Amino acid sequence: MRNFDEKNITDAVIDRLEYARSPRAKQISASLIRHLHDFVRDIEPTQAEWEQAIDFLTRTGQMCNSTRQEFILLSDALGVSMLVDAINHRLPGTATETTVLGPFYVQHAPEVPLGARIAEPDEGPPLLIEGSVRSVDGQPLANATVDIWHADDAGLYDVQKDDTKLSGRARVRTDAQGRFWVIGAVPAAYPIPNDGPVGQMLEAQGRHPFRPAHVHFMVAAPGHETLVTHLFLADSDYLDSDVVFGVKDSLIEVLGTAEPGQTPYGATVESTMPVLRRDFVLGPALSVASS
Amino acid sequence: MRNFDEKNITDAVIDRLEYARSPRAKQISASLIRHLHDFVRDIEPTQAEWEQAIDFLTRTGQMCNSTRQEFILLSDALGVSMLVDAINHRLPGTATETTVLGPFYVQHAPEVPLGARIAEPDEGPPLLIEGSVRSVDGQPLANATVDIWHADDAGLYDVQKDDTKLSGRARVRTDAQGRFWVIGAVPAAYPIPNDGPVGQMLEAQGRHPFRPAHVHFMVAAPGHETLVTHLFLADSDYLDSDVVFGVKDSLIEVLGTAEPGQTPYGATVESTMPVLRRDFVLGPALSVASS
Ligand SMILES: [Fe+2]
Ligand SMILES: [Fe+2]
Repeated sequence: MRNFDEKNITDAVIDRLEYARSPRAKQISASLIRHLHDFVRDIEPTQAEWEQAIDFLTRTGQMCNSTRQEFILLSDALGVSMLVDAINHRLPGTATETTVLGPFYVQHAPEVPLGARIAEPDEGPPLLIEGSVRSVDGQPLANATVDIWHADDAGLYDVQKDDTKLSGRARVRTDAQGRFWVIGAVPAAYPIPNDGPVGQMLEAQGRHPFRPAHVHFMVAAPGHETLVTHLFLADSDYLDSDVVFGVKDSLIEVLGTAEPGQTPYGATVESTMPVLRRDFVLGPALSVASS
Repeated sequence: MRNFDEKNITDAVIDRLEYARSPRAKQISASLIRHLHDFVRDIEPTQAEWEQAIDFLTRTGQMCNSTRQEFILLSDALGVSMLVDAINHRLPGTATETTVLGPFYVQHAPEVPLGARIAEPDEGPPLLIEGSVRSVDGQPLANATVDIWHADDAGLYDVQKDDTKLSGRARVRTDAQGRFWVIGAVPAAYPIPNDGPVGQMLEAQGRHPFRPAHVHFMVAAPGHETLVTHLFLADSDYLDSDVVFGVKDSLIEVLGTAEPGQTPYGATVESTMPVLRRDFVLGPALSVASS
């Protein structure tokens, strides 16, 4: 077990996994070693490039704090997050399609009553966000939790502006007919945070850092696969070049216009405003690990 | 450019590299994306496992400081550092073999005169470290710089004990006949730092964290490839299971015994002590990037 060279070192490292604590730890480690070594043999990094890689990963970790997750941005920008999402959501075709969680999700957002205004007046024109939650058999799901979060009309999330004051973000529960509504603001397309290592990577790759305008949703109901998705605004730029590869045709919505009065989703509208509307369909729970 | 699935997303991400800033940036990025996606498709991580991976990388970055480089430890423990080393040192067979730099190298170690004591009395029994530096044609290399660093007899490097006080570490220059000598201490086998994410990985992989006892050398002379290597002590444990895969038979030395008087390397010995002796041979400079 000595004298390793460019070819035999990979099997030598994998051989050391003999006493791995679990079959899964062994499988993941062996696959990581094989693919990582193949990558290194493919590009043949100089020592200086290897040092740059160490430095890049170190700075990526050190960029992370309670409101900034640079490794999620890296995963997103390399298409890994969407790939993991696809692998974990081989859903029946009738269920709403999924997309990435993104780095701006906040656990335990405040629960608000239906109809709450969740954005400040200076965060953009009011937007009625309404819809319903059903299972694939068409059954309305009452009391489902719907987390909603979106950027403001300058393209910034609350946590990017002031991490003590949540805004453009809330959790509501569906009513007896599976319906929900809140009043947010029309979000803008935005660049993912690009003042760190991921921004430098995009620069080197000749890529823009923008995402098309969208509203995030996380919809959960017992017995169902939690739905993590966005709705994209049909008139946004970047629908064909989302930096995180998250766009699916089925998730693009044309904004409607809500007139004063009551909407079919139980919303009470006082003045004409744009509306983003969707009937979400949750698939059955797929597994313990991801449900 | 939408509606990516498990299979087509890889080419879609690579297609975004069209305007990469350099051919090398494009090549490295494309290879990274391909191998990383293949790895993900191979192991099919759950969302929870993906989150664990993000957390692992984040903690690895945040473990790094001025004296701790956890990503180098990770590279070392996965055999990547030795692979990069092998790729960058396809040297003529007569040159001294290379091994990993390791995380405890310190740039600009103090230059000391030949014969200096570089370890404190409480760091272990004195060890005469002596040798010569030559090129592959046998020519002695005068004024070559020889960086030497080693753990103490408790298995700790200076920077792990007190990062303001260097010990067991120095730079000397070879004399007119290409010779050098210092008095250090007999080092012990040691575990790589295992109180962080890399330690947790080794634990999950069922691996011990030890390296066999060794002394590090970095030898540099103009026009020659800088030699980064160790000498391993022949009576050490772990020669067949070095956690970083660094051992080569040609780098194992049996300690000799230096008797009072002058040695062939110009060392003056006052009392009998063990001696680690090596004639280093530097290959010609291979490339600008790594020389
Ligand atoms: Fe977003
Ligand atoms: Fe070492």
